[in-house]
Amino acid sequence: MKPQLSRRAARLTSSLIRDILQVTQRPGVISFAGGLPAEELMPDLDFTGLDDCRQYGPSEGEPALRSLIAQNLSTLGIACDAEHVLVTSGSQQGIDLVGKLFIDEGSPVLLEAPTYLATIQALAVYGAEFQGLSLTEDGIDPDALRRAIVDRRPAFVYLIPTFQNPSGCCYSDEVRRAVAEVLDEAGVPLIEDDPYRDLAYEPADRTPICAYLQRAAWVYLGSFSKITAPGLRIGYLAASHSLFPGLVRLKQSSDLHSNRPGQLWLTQFLRSDKFDAHAARMVGVYRDRRDAMQAALLRHFAGIAQWRAPAGGLFFWLRLNADCDTLAALHEALTRDVAFMPGEPFFPAGNLRYPAVRLNFSHAAPEQMLEGIAVLGELLGNLAGGTPSRRS
Amino acid sequence: MKPQLSRRAARLTSSLIRDILQVTQRPGVISFAGGLPAEELMPDLDFTGLDDCRQYGPSEGEPALRSLIAQNLSTLGIACDAEHVLVTSGSQQGIDLVGKLFIDEGSPVLLEAPTYLATIQALAVYGAEFQGLSLTEDGIDPDALRRAIVDRRPAFVYLIPTFQNPSGCCYSDEVRRAVAEVLDEAGVPLIEDDPYRDLAYEPADRTPICAYLQRAAWVYLGSFSKITAPGLRIGYLAASHSLFPGLVRLKQSSDLHSNRPGQLWLTQFLRSDKFDAHAARMVGVYRDRRDAMQAALLRHFAGIAQWRAPAGGLFFWLRLNADCDTLAALHEALTRDVAFMPGEPFFPAGNLRYPAVRLNFSHAAPEQMLEGIAVLGELLGNLAGGTPSRRS
Repeated sequence: MKPQLSRRAARLTSSLIRDILQVTQRPGVISFAGGLPAEELMPDLDFTGLDDCRQYGPSEGEPALRSLIAQNLSTLGIACDAEHVLVTSGSQQGIDLVGKLFIDEGSPVLLEAPTYLATIQALAVYGAEFQGLSLTEDGIDPDALRRAIVDRRPAFVYLIPTFQNPSGCCYSDEVRRAVAEVLDEAGVPLIEDDPYRDLAYEPADRTPICAYLQRAAWVYLGSFSKITAPGLRIGYLAASHSLFPGLVRLKQSSDLHSNRPGQLWLTQFLRSDKFDAHAARMVGVYRDRRDAMQAALLRHFAGIAQWRAPAGGLFFWLRLNADCDTLAALHEALTRDVAFMPGEPFFPAGNLRYPAVRLNFSHAAPEQMLEGIAVLGELLGNLAGGTPSRRS
Repeated sequence: MKPQLSRRAARLTSSLIRDILQVTQRPGVISFAGGLPAEELMPDLDFTGLDDCRQYGPSEGEPALRSLIAQNLSTLGIACDAEHVLVTSGSQQGIDLVGKLFIDEGSPVLLEAPTYLATIQALAVYGAEFQGLSLTEDGIDPDALRRAIVDRRPAFVYLIPTFQNPSGCCYSDEVRRAVAEVLDEAGVPLIEDDPYRDLAYEPADRTPICAYLQRAAWVYLGSFSKITAPGLRIGYLAASHSLFPGLVRLKQSSDLHSNRPGQLWLTQFLRSDKFDAHAARMVGVYRDRRDAMQAALLRHFAGIAQWRAPAGGLFFWLRLNADCDTLAALHEALTRDVAFMPGEPFFPAGNLRYPAVRLNFSHAAPEQMLEGIAVLGELLGNLAGGTPSRRS
């Protein structure tokens, strides 16, 4: 007997990528596929003395953590008090709550193409229909945004302006201000997803677009997963006054509140003198790994793809010079114990797609990076019919 | 500028009860309102040695914990391997995932009247339309269930057969078997919510209805919050094969996975020789508190309400003898620093409502219980126009 499921369930996307990612976790695979931070750089989790976290807690989160978050947002220019901060079960939950609050079947959403694939999946569940906005080196084109808003009247615009996943793009300040102006004029809400902000390897414009908004409603999604430990599943959102109460009630019906040991540990760690040193060390190591991958790519991908070394975040995004079945390439790479992410699932809409791959540089052991990139360069060079350059 | 929200957002229910519960947490209030376990009985959270929980983890949950859960379910008669267990961010998330998987706007759902109010809220967000099933001492009436299924063709039937919240009802084995037969015949999925199973104060039929199903699809929702520490936010679900893959994907898009420190601590604690002694102690203390509340009620509520001392769980459910505005009674009780839950929000459908209150007996300090019950007896007796008995 087959149960009758919701229309929503019929939209659940294929688990292909999920299955692939599981394969990449088998021992011996050099994986550039996931977005995993380096476990050896994560802080020790010391829960000693954090006993007062066993009872049910408030849906909004621990007051002390909300205050710290609000203070930090204020330094970024976002006018926000602790009353408008909601602690979430990872920033992924923030995306889900936004979908739940805004999206009906067929609701239009504007977002970057390419964008974070789990956002596409989470919003698609609610029936969002996507229109992609192309990315240049400096971000999206504000005029194209204005036209798309007029054309589609979206429920909201979802952007990752700082060290974007997957492209690594970091919006210029000029574009940030221009985007805010367009949204203020149109009165369209902004969902700003900002998980990579702390992973900056060189100076870059990083003022949140939310800080420039005057009138439009907004939700700012923040993460501790990249700079501390994702296994804690603690993220947060801040939202403008009109949106906050609905998000809290949806949080409550989703899981009552986020786990308290993780919240208390984070409060303690963020307040301690250990945090700055930890963050500086993590950023330094990631910068070295980025540079190592850049060197490996220059050696093995010249003529095969175009890319920029990202100023922050966790990924290189390679636009391939020739069309290529990147999924087939992945299957072949896995037979040689190397994994990467095909670009295709990061595109919300078909018309903006181009052949690409995403390479993570934070997780693979540095000594294996050159070896893995050499394998991929050979494979993708062959598949794309190009001639991989061999300067070695 | 007012953002355009989803139709779902318009269904967010009033935060009245939520606001009331916050008031009840102020110091000095004797609260029978929430469903809070007694913090002083919760196990110490010792995370020493649980270091391997910082990285992202599997959406399904930690393999060792899933195995323990599956073993336990097998002893209850539910044929279930670890592959069909999903660790959730509290069992509340299981309810939300079920709503997400099954419910479109207008989808009919059958459930007990009264039932867990946060289930009503969580499923209403997705647009469920409820039909309530009356509870007798032994559970719902299987014939009424059969008729309601024919009449409404529900997406599923949601039941809390063991120490039901709020009524305390525990289905007889005969009713459990008869309900399973009706569901098997009709091919309607069962969602069995079972958070109170471990809190049994006297012998009672507790075989899950899922264990009696032969053909119908099912989801079994389990909790660790009542027997360990709700602040961890770790619960679980097990589901029949046809439903499990969709639930995992919805879990992934909701929050990627549940927090790992909580999962690892629970695995260690459930495996340890401490667990049985802890559970026995907790159950013993709760039994004493139940008995203390029963004694206080016999003294102060005779003539005002009808009730049975529950065989398990956390609540007394008092059916008032006369109609009474229980919300007004709550406001007055709060001025005297006593809190309880009005019965009204526990009813999914208007036609089955009757005046009632729910009293929790696990949280208030035992020495305050008699004092609080005396205040409530006086208040409700006056409001209902009855004559509270004063045998003191």
